[in-house]
Amino acid sequence: MINQAMYALGDEPSAIRELFAYGLARKAEVGADNVFDYSIGNPSVPAPAIVRDTIIELMDEDPVALHGYTPAAGDPAVKQVIADYIAERYGVPATPGNLYLTAGAAAGLAITISALTVPGDEVIVISPYFPEYKTWIDMAGCAIVEVPAHVPSFQIDADAVAAAITERTSAVIINSPNNPVGAVYTRETLEALARVLTAKEEELGRPIYLISDEPYREITYGAEVPYVPCLYPRTVVCYSYSKALSLPGERIGYIYVSDLMPDAAEVSCAVAGAGRALGYICAPVLLQRVIAKCVAEPSDVAAYAENRRILTEGLSALGYEYVEPDGAFYLWVKALEDDAQAFSDRAKEFELLLVPSDSFGVGGWVRLSYCIARDTIERSMPAFAQLMESYRG
Amino acid sequence: MINQAMYALGDEPSAIRELFAYGLARKAEVGADNVFDYSIGNPSVPAPAIVRDTIIELMDEDPVALHGYTPAAGDPAVKQVIADYIAERYGVPATPGNLYLTAGAAAGLAITISALTVPGDEVIVISPYFPEYKTWIDMAGCAIVEVPAHVPSFQIDADAVAAAITERTSAVIINSPNNPVGAVYTRETLEALARVLTAKEEELGRPIYLISDEPYREITYGAEVPYVPCLYPRTVVCYSYSKALSLPGERIGYIYVSDLMPDAAEVSCAVAGAGRALGYICAPVLLQRVIAKCVAEPSDVAAYAENRRILTEGLSALGYEYVEPDGAFYLWVKALEDDAQAFSDRAKEFELLLVPSDSFGVGGWVRLSYCIARDTIERSMPAFAQLMESYRG
Repeated sequence: MINQAMYALGDEPSAIRELFAYGLARKAEVGADNVFDYSIGNPSVPAPAIVRDTIIELMDEDPVALHGYTPAAGDPAVKQVIADYIAERYGVPATPGNLYLTAGAAAGLAITISALTVPGDEVIVISPYFPEYKTWIDMAGCAIVEVPAHVPSFQIDADAVAAAITERTSAVIINSPNNPVGAVYTRETLEALARVLTAKEEELGRPIYLISDEPYREITYGAEVPYVPCLYPRTVVCYSYSKALSLPGERIGYIYVSDLMPDAAEVSCAVAGAGRALGYICAPVLLQRVIAKCVAEPSDVAAYAENRRILTEGLSALGYEYVEPDGAFYLWVKALEDDAQAFSDRAKEFELLLVPSDSFGVGGWVRLSYCIARDTIERSMPAFAQLMESYRG
Repeated sequence: MINQAMYALGDEPSAIRELFAYGLARKAEVGADNVFDYSIGNPSVPAPAIVRDTIIELMDEDPVALHGYTPAAGDPAVKQVIADYIAERYGVPATPGNLYLTAGAAAGLAITISALTVPGDEVIVISPYFPEYKTWIDMAGCAIVEVPAHVPSFQIDADAVAAAITERTSAVIINSPNNPVGAVYTRETLEALARVLTAKEEELGRPIYLISDEPYREITYGAEVPYVPCLYPRTVVCYSYSKALSLPGERIGYIYVSDLMPDAAEVSCAVAGAGRALGYICAPVLLQRVIAKCVAEPSDVAAYAENRRILTEGLSALGYEYVEPDGAFYLWVKALEDDAQAFSDRAKEFELLLVPSDSFGVGGWVRLSYCIARDTIERSMPAFAQLMESYRG
């Protein structure tokens, strides 16, 4: 008599988690050095020293105030610092009232989807897409509508989005830099999407929200990452410091509802309500205070850039096809057979742990997380060669 | 076209938050010393020194591992420490698999309610009750069924619970030590409730879960707080370190699903699924690690006990009626007129901020949080005298 949908969700084998667990067991069996684990997106670059220094400094403060509740939306002083940063960097209006601090981008997305939809609505995602989008869309009682990205650029196909919009479409979720593909949406892509959404809003006489999931915003290799609210006012940004500051387990991020949006006040209010409904009280306070000190801290992308170079050069030389990544720390590699799961299983025989693309909503590819030790990448190349060879044999 | 239920929830004036906000404004106006703010349950005792020491110690660890993701249910090593503590203290079977670490008891309750119910079910609460229960029950698409506690003992009326159970009842939520009343449920009370639930399970041929919300377990003044899973196996415990260790803003607690429950594996799985659905990834990792060091740290109840003594002696001498609190840091005082809101408004004229009982589901009382400075309590007595006088005049 428990909730069977929740049971199924708890029981569901996540391909990523399964592979990660297999990897742990396999490493115990054959030695960590002999397994090439590309499964998980856990940043391998340490948090910047300012995080540690700030935490130690904060330990001198009055613990009652330091560890006490903040308002549900976060400490106003912390939100002021973040708002000032957003306003200056992106040239948009930003005040503390535009921000709702969250326990990471996952909380931000779950809250935002619940705030902007009613059961029976449709939410569009661009496939391949982060698997949990479907979980949160389901939770809100909505239907997920998958719109394939252009291949091989993996930019958004604005015409396909237009064709997928119905009178029940309440939101479109985008993620740039993209997990799992590494694509960064160009200004042209986002402008085309904005034109489509604006035209559809007018045609259907209803708002269509753009939810911009941006945990990888700071992890780029030279590409411009346009600020989405500047291009489409009815954008809600879900940001996280997980990847930018290498704090994934600490759960700290924010929802930004820009005043550029005509219904900003209503949306902010619904966000606050959805936060309450989902059991959020306030974002972890110690981390709120840390962020106030680190808001302008640059991400250390150099290690990822070097990993990316070694991995793509190595795979290229072996004849693998992949999408040249402009951001994030994932490489999207063409499987050597149509069945991505079978390819991932074959790769395991060579101790290569590659996530099959099926869980991202498409077939025929694998995702490699290259936020791992450089040495692992270098030592994995003979295994990739053997894997390729096994298909030629 | 946003979600109007979420909007309403975000827009809803919480009596507690409203009074707290009024207090801040009023203090700015007339001076903090001249306002007697009994509105909010923010612990006034500092976190124990071991919290600070542990955080500083942890700063020497590798930041990649320290701040990285743990499994969704929490760090297995941390869960082992908590499980060992539970097993030894309460004499129940407890393993890491029985625990799901959460961002506080609020997350624990929202997750547990979603896991144990389907839309259309009924969830019983004992009134007066913590207002957010209704929010989370609504969110799960269920109906809240309020069963009044015995007055003036504020123990559970087991016969009334029996009468309220229908074939749609999936769970009963209890909270001991109790917010807002300060009652601690006796062993007899819990045994009577267990008998009723067991009989109803048999009669209706369905499980009825007992959700035990226990953030105040450590804040008691000598009363026994029986461990509920020992008395009724189908109990899910939602615990938080917010009050016990004075860390309310850090959001750390757990859900304990005992193996005493015949369907423990299914319930644990549904809890994990509901956690995913509501956007939780893992409890904040730094705090997970802190808890592993503080699991047996005693709560500093002495200050609350002294506040309780001064407040109850003072109000008693003035002729106020109240419920003698056995735990938590709330005093439940009879309003001097039937309309609790009107009484609370009148109290404001004397700079006394008392939360009217209506938001806890009953009329005619006010809640005083006495986790405040002792000096404030002492200096508030003339105001209480004037308030009483104003009703006699």
